[in-house]
Amino acid sequence: MRILIIGAVAAGAKAAAKAKRLLPDAEIVVYTDDTHVSYSACGIPYYIEGNFDDYRTLLVRSVEDFQKSGVSVYIRHKVLKIIKESKQVLVQNLDDNKSFLVSYDKLIIATGANPIIPPIRNNCFKNIFKVRKIEDAIDIKNKLEDTKRAVIIGGGYIGLEMLEALVRNNIYTTLIERGNYLMPVLDEDMSDLVKTQLLEIAEHKFEIVTGHSAVEFCGDNDGVLSVETDNGNIYDADMVIICAGVKPNVELAEDAGIKLGITGAIKVNRKMETSEADIYACGDCCEENHIITNEPVWMPLGSNANKEGRCAAINACGGEDEFLGVLSSAVTRCFGITISMTGLNEKVAQKAGFDVISTTVNKFDRVGYMPNAQNITLKLIADKKTGKLLGGQAVGSAGSDKRINTLATALLGGLTVSEFERNDLTYAPPFSTTIDPLLNAAQILLDKINS
Amino acid sequence: MRILIIGAVAAGAKAAAKAKRLLPDAEIVVYTDDTHVSYSACGIPYYIEGNFDDYRTLLVRSVEDFQKSGVSVYIRHKVLKIIKESKQVLVQNLDDNKSFLVSYDKLIIATGANPIIPPIRNNCFKNIFKVRKIEDAIDIKNKLEDTKRAVIIGGGYIGLEMLEALVRNNIYTTLIERGNYLMPVLDEDMSDLVKTQLLEIAEHKFEIVTGHSAVEFCGDNDGVLSVETDNGNIYDADMVIICAGVKPNVELAEDAGIKLGITGAIKVNRKMETSEADIYACGDCCEENHIITNEPVWMPLGSNANKEGRCAAINACGGEDEFLGVLSSAVTRCFGITISMTGLNEKVAQKAGFDVISTTVNKFDRVGYMPNAQNITLKLIADKKTGKLLGGQAVGSAGSDKRINTLATALLGGLTVSEFERNDLTYAPPFSTTIDPLLNAAQILLDKINS
Repeated sequence: MRILIIGAVAAGAKAAAKAKRLLPDAEIVVYTDDTHVSYSACGIPYYIEGNFDDYRTLLVRSVEDFQKSGVSVYIRHKVLKIIKESKQVLVQNLDDNKSFLVSYDKLIIATGANPIIPPIRNNCFKNIFKVRKIEDAIDIKNKLEDTKRAVIIGGGYIGLEMLEALVRNNIYTTLIERGNYLMPVLDEDMSDLVKTQLLEIAEHKFEIVTGHSAVEFCGDNDGVLSVETDNGNIYDADMVIICAGVKPNVELAEDAGIKLGITGAIKVNRKMETSEADIYACGDCCEENHIITNEPVWMPLGSNANKEGRCAAINACGGEDEFLGVLSSAVTRCFGITISMTGLNEKVAQKAGFDVISTTVNKFDRVGYMPNAQNITLKLIADKKTGKLLGGQAVGSAGSDKRINTLATALLGGLTVSEFERNDLTYAPPFSTTIDPLLNAAQILLDKINS
Repeated sequence: MRILIIGAVAAGAKAAAKAKRLLPDAEIVVYTDDTHVSYSACGIPYYIEGNFDDYRTLLVRSVEDFQKSGVSVYIRHKVLKIIKESKQVLVQNLDDNKSFLVSYDKLIIATGANPIIPPIRNNCFKNIFKVRKIEDAIDIKNKLEDTKRAVIIGGGYIGLEMLEALVRNNIYTTLIERGNYLMPVLDEDMSDLVKTQLLEIAEHKFEIVTGHSAVEFCGDNDGVLSVETDNGNIYDADMVIICAGVKPNVELAEDAGIKLGITGAIKVNRKMETSEADIYACGDCCEENHIITNEPVWMPLGSNANKEGRCAAINACGGEDEFLGVLSSAVTRCFGITISMTGLNEKVAQKAGFDVISTTVNKFDRVGYMPNAQNITLKLIADKKTGKLLGGQAVGSAGSDKRINTLATALLGGLTVSEFERNDLTYAPPFSTTIDPLLNAAQILLDKINS
């Protein structure tokens, strides 16, 4: 029995470790074109920010760790082709360029996602970086010291995290988001709030440009010098970080005739099986079922990758496991502002045909007389027809992500606003208001639904 | 239409405000034997600790605020008797001792709870305090300056909160809990953990005595000097704080023939109606339905009081509202250790006839490489037969109470461990591990259930 895994960052690494535990006698072989395995890509901004000094902190398991546990991991080995008819893959060793065939009994595709490189002219200058691999992290870190100004392209999760990381390294940073709103997974009102709160603390440390695209890089042999936007503005930059999103890495799968879903990522069922026998997919390269709509979505997040890798391994090993899907729960942080969300936002809920009703409250996160009481703005979204909760977004203090988790659990349980409003949440002055902001929002939303 | 309310701390104050909003033309009359109204009793330890200097910060609404909104509030007016046959109450003005009769259309009893004073000899010395009313708070605060050593009787929520409050005022404090465990609402393993963690930081600032009762106070005309325990130990004390729990204040109700429940508190239905027509009860004087067992419990907490006051007012005003009950969710904090719980603990679950299974995990609250990563010990309890979650307890970092809220929502939704384990909780390195400790515990518990 040989289980062959392509990719070894989050889903692939998890699948390998889980498969070895389930079937100690099976041969578990992992190929990756990367130089590192099993690393926390989500941690790269925090490494660059300076929360820790050694990039190896980001590595969860080394190749040696895997070898010791009996998993064969080959770095810098690119899988060129899946030959499903003969259950083989064609592998190229990137060091000597030699290729060879390897057969498999079960194949797990965990090829992840690649950064989107927007069509900006002259993007071949030095010091234009992506944020994806350990090498990217090291390259950015090495460049920090002689960087005074930087431009970030993209205002999503990673863009905001990198903004904080660079500013905390005393680099004046311009963040350019071509859309009109930061964090497009939020509704516009909540996104506006993020921008307003960020600008309040920007001082002379950073600036945010929305509604304009970067169109051209200027530079010289030493590297990039500036970025021009579509309105002719020019922003000086010793360094550019491209955080314009990612796309699923599905070339290998597509080439092998494995079906993609409507999101463009690999289509899988709840057992993480692809359209082809004995081939599984997990992590950022495949799509997920949305628990609320039962429609496919693509949520390339470390938490999902981890669960999907586990599920794929269990099924590939002959067990029975199902990955139910996602609620689109996510969180990020920028300068102490926690931004988190779960379920459907208003736009998505409307598109999905719900009779959308929502409310937004702005409250203290604990009793106002306690030190460090901070604001939390909380938006709850429901379906007026059924009264069911559909989602929520929170912008504010550090505890707001956990309130979103409480809401996610209500979504998982299919609770109505009326049911959720009767929840018994913990209360003490250092932790919440007598009626938690979540329940307060639910009360107001319930009144709106009933009116 | 006259709605008469007895008591004005949390439930009574909430009921009065809500009733006035619902029926602006009705006469809302509140009598309380207290000197203050609408205050945050839960905030007293934080006032004493020194988080804010003015006790008036604890007052939510003043008598004048109520008068302005058209609610008549009479402080230092004790209701001596409820005469349900004639729908009247007998009230005594504590300032001139004159008594008078007042009629009502609807009566809301919100008489709260009284501190339990344990049978300790010579408890009439000066500087022996309770923690219940604003006057108690002021008296303790005034005594802090010339206090070097203190004894706290009782190791529940308030005892632990007062321990931190006194120690932060540089008072060497001995906490005496007659039971073998602090925080008896926890299971013993989790309670032990609290004690261990507290003793690690005790240094020469405080000590904890469990398994021994205080039996006698010694003192002189200037006040208490020491406390003797049942094993003959003597603890010096310039001040004693009694935090030995509370009992529902039900004398008036009992005298009027209003039925009490098996908990000793006033029995009410979901509309907060007592056994007698047109008489409601809410807050610490009445018992609650437990959502999991559907059995009565008594959970005298500010959050419950608030919701019950609201519900009683809506129904007394002719509306329709139901208070579903409680999950026994609660939280407290002692020196940065957050202690929180929801649902049934193991002991209670066993007594209720469940086939109890549990697991306890000790994890970082965020990715280990992030600054300030702290431990959280999380216990999950389920019924092996049905797989349903029954409760949980958390001891550890500041975020642990919010994880308990996530669990409370799962209990509210009646989720099984298997359903909950598939939850989609937010993940980013500053906020949680890739698989949140809650889900990690659920995975382990699920394996235990299935094995």
